[in-house]
Amino acid sequence: MKMNFVEKLLKAARTNQSLLCIGLDPDLQMMPADISILDFNKAIIEATSDLVCAYKPNLAFYETLGAEGFRVLEGTVACVPDQIPTIGDAKRGDIGNTARAYARSLFEMFGFDAATVNPLMGFDSLEPFIEYRDRGVFVLCRTSNPGSADLQDQLLENGPMYEIIAKLAWDWNKYGNMGLVVGATYPEELARVRQLCPDMPLLIPGVGAQGGDLASAVRYGVDVKGEKAIIASSRQIIFASKGKDFAEAARDAALQLRDRINRYLEDV
Amino acid sequence: MKMNFVEKLLKAARTNQSLLCIGLDPDLQMMPADISILDFNKAIIEATSDLVCAYKPNLAFYETLGAEGFRVLEGTVACVPDQIPTIGDAKRGDIGNTARAYARSLFEMFGFDAATVNPLMGFDSLEPFIEYRDRGVFVLCRTSNPGSADLQDQLLENGPMYEIIAKLAWDWNKYGNMGLVVGATYPEELARVRQLCPDMPLLIPGVGAQGGDLASAVRYGVDVKGEKAIIASSRQIIFASKGKDFAEAARDAALQLRDRINRYLEDV
Repeated sequence: MKMNFVEKLLKAARTNQSLLCIGLDPDLQMMPADISILDFNKAIIEATSDLVCAYKPNLAFYETLGAEGFRVLEGTVACVPDQIPTIGDAKRGDIGNTARAYARSLFEMFGFDAATVNPLMGFDSLEPFIEYRDRGVFVLCRTSNPGSADLQDQLLENGPMYEIIAKLAWDWNKYGNMGLVVGATYPEELARVRQLCPDMPLLIPGVGAQGGDLASAVRYGVDVKGEKAIIASSRQIIFASKGKDFAEAARDAALQLRDRINRYLEDV
Repeated sequence: MKMNFVEKLLKAARTNQSLLCIGLDPDLQMMPADISILDFNKAIIEATSDLVCAYKPNLAFYETLGAEGFRVLEGTVACVPDQIPTIGDAKRGDIGNTARAYARSLFEMFGFDAATVNPLMGFDSLEPFIEYRDRGVFVLCRTSNPGSADLQDQLLENGPMYEIIAKLAWDWNKYGNMGLVVGATYPEELARVRQLCPDMPLLIPGVGAQGGDLASAVRYGVDVKGEKAIIASSRQIIFASKGKDFAEAARDAALQLRDRINRYLEDV
């Protein structure tokens, strides 16, 4: 039987001894010249696939190239070894029949093992994703950017909005395939979300260029077994060198970050 | 000088005496057999472009076809006559550099005159869109689906969340290029949003298959001049017939809806 997303994630994390997820977010300005995006991604994947628990392409960087970008994305997902889960970072959210089209696009067309979704439109906008019981659905909860405070920190009658989102996700998680996105840039909120949802995988961006504290991300992000935290990093790994040695440099950066995460994990 | 989005919208609405926006949301199940999506869209546009104030393709229905879908979307936008504004219904929202990639995709790659965005991640996630001063940016405020209540109706210290979103958008609208998305299925909320943002264009889905009341959508949606409401309808127009007469049937349905809107407008 095919593994579901959480099983696949845990297996990859245990095999590779890694909570590191590499963001495959290509940027022509920061890549070596004279290489196609697909070849770039392929080289990064080949150089790092024994060091990660997942890969996470953000769709924006492909959409900016239109149809050609989507072709590159299809090719990129196909390059990821079967045993490593892929997370389509798309942050989609729309009404029922439209959400179904998005879910079909991410899970069937591109074949992602998981996707990020935006909960602003409520349960019926997420349900078509959740119905793919073998796939993972990561709900934006407390995002890593400064502006996240504008709405996610607004005080509701029974707590700030990100807590309400975490509690709703907990209620909606009837098939055990949901997770939350919480930025490493907000360690207190991360700790609170982990407390509210002790069993859910947490996707944690923000440790690299955005300045989130890695020690807190690991300490507050993992579950009681020291698992189910997915520490995402993109730029500091994939753009570690702009030279011919870019894949080797990415491997070095990934290895370093994975090992730092594992050292912090010993202190948890 | 090139017109900005609001000028272009008002001009098209006045020329065509129309507040109707047709949603170009193709669905292979509901289309005539033996026609490509691009030819279908092209025929719908040719049959209706003197009856609308805008066209609004929802990206989900193209993404579900992967790279080929994006090629069809590029072709579809190119078929819309220059004087009719196009709204890319994408509901995007992501952190700064990623939001920039999305804005570039929608405004430069596809060439939309406006786009819908999701405000959950706050101002810095919308700013890259707003910075395209000649383009329109429609912020999700009170969406038309039942699940919208899950978060958008949550009570904050000073009102429900959709009101906070409307007030934030009002503050963020430094270039006068922002609008709001409010479903016709929630007429009281629509009236309240129009009161809070008297001058902003409102994009109003939900009058067709979703059952929103057209009379209220018109009465509460327009500004004091009876303008700046964009009444969006998709399925009831583009799938009016599954036969060879689909374009003619779409024209009839569009004409009828436009004229009903205009009759309600007389009573405002």
